[in-house]
Amino acid sequence: MKKLLRFIALFLILQNAAFAQEKNETILAKIYENALLSTQAYNQLGVLCEQAPGRLIGTKNSFVAVDLMKKYLEDLGADTVFLQAFSSPAWICHSASASMFIDGKEIPLKVDALGPSGSSPKKGITAEIIEVQSIEEVRNLGREKIEGKIVFYNRPFNNLLFNTFQAYGQAVDQRAQGPQVALELGAVASITRSVTGGLNDFPHTGSTRFKDKKIPAIAISTNDAEKLSAALKKHLNLKVNIHVDAEDIVTNTFNLIADLKGNEKPDEYLVVGGHIDAWHNTQGAHDDGIGCLQSSEVVRLFKETGLKNKRSIRVILYMDEELYQSGGKAYALYSKENNVKNYFAMESDAGGFTPRGFTLDVSENSLKKIKEFHPLLEPYGIQFLVAGGGGVDIGPLKELGVSLSGYRSDWQRYFDMHHCANDTFEQVNQREMQLGSAAMTSLIYLIDQFDLVE
Amino acid sequence: MKKLLRFIALFLILQNAAFAQEKNETILAKIYENALLSTQAYNQLGVLCEQAPGRLIGTKNSFVAVDLMKKYLEDLGADTVFLQAFSSPAWICHSASASMFIDGKEIPLKVDALGPSGSSPKKGITAEIIEVQSIEEVRNLGREKIEGKIVFYNRPFNNLLFNTFQAYGQAVDQRAQGPQVALELGAVASITRSVTGGLNDFPHTGSTRFKDKKIPAIAISTNDAEKLSAALKKHLNLKVNIHVDAEDIVTNTFNLIADLKGNEKPDEYLVVGGHIDAWHNTQGAHDDGIGCLQSSEVVRLFKETGLKNKRSIRVILYMDEELYQSGGKAYALYSKENNVKNYFAMESDAGGFTPRGFTLDVSENSLKKIKEFHPLLEPYGIQFLVAGGGGVDIGPLKELGVSLSGYRSDWQRYFDMHHCANDTFEQVNQREMQLGSAAMTSLIYLIDQFDLVE
Repeated sequence: MKKLLRFIALFLILQNAAFAQEKNETILAKIYENALLSTQAYNQLGVLCEQAPGRLIGTKNSFVAVDLMKKYLEDLGADTVFLQAFSSPAWICHSASASMFIDGKEIPLKVDALGPSGSSPKKGITAEIIEVQSIEEVRNLGREKIEGKIVFYNRPFNNLLFNTFQAYGQAVDQRAQGPQVALELGAVASITRSVTGGLNDFPHTGSTRFKDKKIPAIAISTNDAEKLSAALKKHLNLKVNIHVDAEDIVTNTFNLIADLKGNEKPDEYLVVGGHIDAWHNTQGAHDDGIGCLQSSEVVRLFKETGLKNKRSIRVILYMDEELYQSGGKAYALYSKENNVKNYFAMESDAGGFTPRGFTLDVSENSLKKIKEFHPLLEPYGIQFLVAGGGGVDIGPLKELGVSLSGYRSDWQRYFDMHHCANDTFEQVNQREMQLGSAAMTSLIYLIDQFDLVE
Repeated sequence: MKKLLRFIALFLILQNAAFAQEKNETILAKIYENALLSTQAYNQLGVLCEQAPGRLIGTKNSFVAVDLMKKYLEDLGADTVFLQAFSSPAWICHSASASMFIDGKEIPLKVDALGPSGSSPKKGITAEIIEVQSIEEVRNLGREKIEGKIVFYNRPFNNLLFNTFQAYGQAVDQRAQGPQVALELGAVASITRSVTGGLNDFPHTGSTRFKDKKIPAIAISTNDAEKLSAALKKHLNLKVNIHVDAEDIVTNTFNLIADLKGNEKPDEYLVVGGHIDAWHNTQGAHDDGIGCLQSSEVVRLFKETGLKNKRSIRVILYMDEELYQSGGKAYALYSKENNVKNYFAMESDAGGFTPRGFTLDVSENSLKKIKEFHPLLEPYGIQFLVAGGGGVDIGPLKELGVSLSGYRSDWQRYFDMHHCANDTFEQVNQREMQLGSAAMTSLIYLIDQFDLVE
């Protein structure tokens, strides 16, 4: 009798497990089908890109973007949509240009200001160039060789690497720390080769960090970096004129937050977001208009497929990922001060190409539990669920013990567009973008439903 | 003592296995690094696309393409490069157009001829349209409703499916068999909605099969399919004029073959190829200029990384995959007649986007052996090694017992370009293409080195 009962119990457990798996498959299929058929998010991305390009914190277009997306999230039927106000330093770029002089001829270069570059006098700064391959080289050259010069960081992106994010990580110190190191040794300005793999005419901007003083700091297109480098080999005393007109301000600004109330634990939050700001030189389609729309899709997909969320879903469109990361910090502070229970936070800020996977900054045990659901996601091109960082905006939540995740789309084309005028709506494929929306919604559904993080 | 010996033996085996694995990792890294740095194949793809677009069997540009690629393979240093001559029917498209008439006004439609469409009289064929969703519907309507009409197949591509090749497979009967079924029931011409997911202005051509007689058979862009369908709802007796000027010929043509001699078993062949022909309306970059260049890269990568191939590597650029598949059949016949030992055959004819995996038409035991090497390929984005077909050109080798494989790149964008004017060199990303070349070379290396198929 006991054996029979045990047998029946086991049978019921197995049957339930099989049923649950089948049910999950059906739910994911519904999510993906809805995502692939809907053009709403894609169209709204077009609106955001075309009506609010260059939406860096403090700019007019940053407010236009917040208005556009607030209206959009309200229309999607989120239960609450509100602005989390905060104040932050900001930086407005009015113009940037540079030319080199060869035999008395002025040859314009394709450049753009790094943020927050210092300004030059109106007529620009003209000085000799010293080309280097690394920050270490600048330090070794010392004040004697650097003082009064323009430092030109020209170490290329390593195209040997399969992972372009790794190549980016290896090159980006020339942009992030290079100008400050040059300044410390007396340089009057700095030029950084665009942190991108290909040879083309787009200057790729990005953030740099100064301490108290600033100098003009610009990025140059890879084609013109090659041109400048070749010219330097012929004309040792070649001079370059750099002009930057920019302004430091302090601004009141917002994170945009939209909640879809949970059915069982409404005061616990499943946070999903991207950043609404974009550099002054770009529509910011892949970086990160897509992250904003994919995150908004989580609300739409839950509602339209009739899924029940136990916890509240909170879409956050962070302001200022690019310059000072003030939005992410502001939300973490707000959470701490108001004792907000962020159960889980996901970010999409790595492009909207075809899906590859998720990185997870969670406990070992949670990672193990999440991986058990990999077979459900793999048929949709989710190759990996691996340990890794969440993202810049949700990073500050880690200190509060929140489990984090980053959505990862295919990275081969990403740095062709990153932080430059080439990051346009036309570069977005609707299906690839929507497969990301569906993958994010699916993982959030599973984590919520089966309490996969701790 | 025996125990000690056993222990030492085990230790040596494990050490060897670890060493072999490390050696393979190093070899693959070398292949990928060389592939990612070399621009040679990408540049040659540009030449092929620009100098020999529309290179359908029997056309002038098909011969230009063979010449260009023969010279290229010779310059790569293949040991033998030769043309395998054969004769085949072919079809030359001179022009195709169509218009609909609404209230006496002629409105041009974006169309192209399917291959091998019949020709119309010079002034075209004008008739009423009957719109259908399937071949079955045509059969049900019968001769009474079809006779004297133009049948308009308008069932859309199913965008719900993650796998666009599956969606293609579900829609393509309207193009492949639809015109013949229409003809059998007395239709005077046929129009097929382009077999593609998006709404755009490109007519996508492709092959159709007639028995003895032919009628004009055209594809219409998805935008104009919608327009025509909407017009039909308002104007029941709407007429369309279809004009096709095409020609059936018989041609002498070639497969282009290049061999890199094996070091141990030179009379066994590792076949790798793509098809050199492309539809009359396209540069044929993804379909299948890329397959030709990726296959050629296998030779270059073996040579330049100093790898030794036990068996001979045979690159085949097949003629006429698109129209009658005569090149693939001709090589299989040549193999049979000359008792050629094709050990393994791989095809790249599914686009040159970021890599996803390989399908394998091999024995169960071989598949198991190949899968053991998956951990070496996974870090390079090869998500799957699964059972599946090899490809149209190598298909005829199956009868001869050859193990087959198809390289699969990401399929989300493929049918946006397939068989239309949008399949241009500009749509190709050099890194994505070269990751495919490296993946193909790696798998061929492993199969050869460890005798993975039988």
